[in-house]
Amino acid sequence: MTLQQQTPNIDELIDTITPLLARQDLITLTGVLTPLSTSEIVEVLERLNLKQRAIIHRLLAKDRALEVFEMLPPALQSDLFTGLQDADVSRLFAELDPDDRMWLLDEVPAVLAARLLRGLPEDERVLTAGLLGYRQGSVGRRMTPEFVTTHVGMTAAESIERVRARLADAETVYTIPVLDHGRRVAGIVSLRDLLGADPDAPVEAFMQPAHTSEATEEAEVAARMCTDLRLLALPIVDSESRLIGMLTIDDAVRILEHEESQDAARQGGAEPLNRPYLSTPVFTIVRSRVVWLLVLAVGATLTVQVLSAFEATLAQVTALALFVPLLIGTGGNTGNQAATTVTRALALGDVRPRDILRVLSRELLTGALLGLLLGAIGFGIAALVFAPDMGLVIGLTLLAVCTVAAAVGGIMPLVARAIRVDPAVFSNPFITTFVDATGLVIYFLIARIVLHL
Amino acid sequence: MTLQQQTPNIDELIDTITPLLARQDLITLTGVLTPLSTSEIVEVLERLNLKQRAIIHRLLAKDRALEVFEMLPPALQSDLFTGLQDADVSRLFAELDPDDRMWLLDEVPAVLAARLLRGLPEDERVLTAGLLGYRQGSVGRRMTPEFVTTHVGMTAAESIERVRARLADAETVYTIPVLDHGRRVAGIVSLRDLLGADPDAPVEAFMQPAHTSEATEEAEVAARMCTDLRLLALPIVDSESRLIGMLTIDDAVRILEHEESQDAARQGGAEPLNRPYLSTPVFTIVRSRVVWLLVLAVGATLTVQVLSAFEATLAQVTALALFVPLLIGTGGNTGNQAATTVTRALALGDVRPRDILRVLSRELLTGALLGLLLGAIGFGIAALVFAPDMGLVIGLTLLAVCTVAAAVGGIMPLVARAIRVDPAVFSNPFITTFVDATGLVIYFLIARIVLHL
Repeated sequence: MTLQQQTPNIDELIDTITPLLARQDLITLTGVLTPLSTSEIVEVLERLNLKQRAIIHRLLAKDRALEVFEMLPPALQSDLFTGLQDADVSRLFAELDPDDRMWLLDEVPAVLAARLLRGLPEDERVLTAGLLGYRQGSVGRRMTPEFVTTHVGMTAAESIERVRARLADAETVYTIPVLDHGRRVAGIVSLRDLLGADPDAPVEAFMQPAHTSEATEEAEVAARMCTDLRLLALPIVDSESRLIGMLTIDDAVRILEHEESQDAARQGGAEPLNRPYLSTPVFTIVRSRVVWLLVLAVGATLTVQVLSAFEATLAQVTALALFVPLLIGTGGNTGNQAATTVTRALALGDVRPRDILRVLSRELLTGALLGLLLGAIGFGIAALVFAPDMGLVIGLTLLAVCTVAAAVGGIMPLVARAIRVDPAVFSNPFITTFVDATGLVIYFLIARIVLHL
Repeated sequence: MTLQQQTPNIDELIDTITPLLARQDLITLTGVLTPLSTSEIVEVLERLNLKQRAIIHRLLAKDRALEVFEMLPPALQSDLFTGLQDADVSRLFAELDPDDRMWLLDEVPAVLAARLLRGLPEDERVLTAGLLGYRQGSVGRRMTPEFVTTHVGMTAAESIERVRARLADAETVYTIPVLDHGRRVAGIVSLRDLLGADPDAPVEAFMQPAHTSEATEEAEVAARMCTDLRLLALPIVDSESRLIGMLTIDDAVRILEHEESQDAARQGGAEPLNRPYLSTPVFTIVRSRVVWLLVLAVGATLTVQVLSAFEATLAQVTALALFVPLLIGTGGNTGNQAATTVTRALALGDVRPRDILRVLSRELLTGALLGLLLGAIGFGIAALVFAPDMGLVIGLTLLAVCTVAAAVGGIMPLVARAIRVDPAVFSNPFITTFVDATGLVIYFLIARIVLHL
């Protein structure tokens, strides 16, 4: 009787689900799946083909996905892995709009995630990591699933045996996470600790507290953590601290190197090449620079407008034009110094966006001190070579421009980070262009007042 | 008889040597020591005190130093280590003029070098590495002497026992150099290989070829080699391939991070802070920037002189002044883009100083293409808003300035490297200043011709 009630239900469900699958309408599909019981979902899965089954299973919430998986017959469990590793299925999820993915896809249960990634060649692994819901740039995309673990109940000798069994395929065997019964990381032992320990000692007795990073964390942040703490490998966990992968120090170094190259290029006002300079076609180099150059040139037309506004003043005292490159150049340099220091401090994690007021006050003070010194020298020279009032104009302008430039240069990278733009994009040339225009306005206003124009 | 002939000799020698030691006249001392026989030197050493003995021994050529060491009674051998580790003795050699050190101090024999460094706390180790003749910035100053080795004649099981014996004090136990009878690095085994191998297999059978770096190599180059090859540790050898230390990957990462910070700061026209930004006193920040700012400001007075030379032209056509910031700004940006790309390529080892002609031709072409595009746009706008001949001046200037700026920006870092200056010192602000002055000359020359002034 129960069976008879269910059977038509399932048939109807299959009739609803199949066209949705064909249309790849994942959103409606999720709506259909949510009210179903676990056993109903299992029955649906048993009637679908390999790829369909993988897609449906991937749309389930984390806890439900694990329940369903455990209720599947072993043959279908292994089918499910094949289906989820299928390139078409991976791509379907990898190409999801990031916003859709956010609310559509819960994490994959840790035990499945690790097994899914294991044994895949690197390119397929990156694709499959996308299917797991870790977005581009997260450490989930860069971790290795080929690691060795031990267990809180094991001894040193048993742990060494586990290491020996995985020597051939594990990517990292020197840092060994100690898991508890819920697959959570309870601690870390190094192979060195294991070799030095009494063979019968339980690993729990000498394991160290573990540093871990969540798979959704920025790859750069996790990599910096790995190198700062001088770890050979950093365990990567899901939101419930269950182990899914490891970030090895050599991968961490690659991630940071890539970020450094990107920062360096953007601070110079170009897009990173991502390949060796001499083997990059000239046309690609031009393309990496032209957009920024155009944007900056358009920005620089501001200076033409500012100068047009003061053209009468310029015509009266042509000598004012002589100092334009010197003044805006010094402003640009001061701004660049501040921006470079703060961008680097951001990259190293020494400064955070919430420190903006402290950075502002420090840079205002630094800029004023530098401006005071340069202004005094500028006053002296210009007063001697030209006239005392000209000296006053130059001196006061240097003081004002240095102060403004250091402040703008210092807070710009923080503003960029706060609005989630790469701080290096608000790069030195950008700041120079901004400071050029501001500096000219300051210069001519001071000149008008001091020279009574 | 032989003894009688020698005895007065040695007395005289001691009388010559003692005042030279007191005066720390190492150059004359070396001259006195060179013609002596090994046994004469041993006799001299036996009559001196602990520090004197260390200084004399350190002045001997490498081969002689080893012969003398082996002829010394064991008590004096151990005294010699104490003397060489003495802070005063270390400092004497560390403070030697680099040129003097170059021709005065041969390498310390590898077997002594490794023993000398071992067991010292990090600060003393850095000092003592100076005594060994490794100059500031070389990897010899950064290597660790606390490592484990094995030997070509040993088996896997014997090697693992050696590792176990050093677990407590070795800094790195996962990468194990295999030494031959001359202490030369014959190959490398990893602890992982050892654990996976048949216990009775000779390490020679499964060791891998070793990458090594000489102790006199730049620390940055060795560190980049370590991370590029994804090695957990890189063996550091003397000029005869004898092992003296290991560079671990975490130290390699620190070295590179420090270099990146330095490059970033210098490209922004400031000296690196070497400490977290927020905890650096404002006065220190000012000091890190002021020298460069002054140098650049002095450089920028060039632009004042260039403009003075063209003051008559400026007075005739005030409109020319309006484009000055735009033109030199675009030139500066183009130069910065090129300089940043090439500096980064140098840091990554993608480009070498001998590639200067290839870089020059690539950057000339890149600059010309960028200038052609920007010049066309500039011509169009200036011709419309001002006059066709003004458009021609702006367009031609943009073409010329972009070409020159990219070429100068591209080769400047190579020139810096070739004359052994940090490429980042010929930094973006430096290039900007240079391009500013050149660009103004180009601008006014073109203006004079086109506008018939």
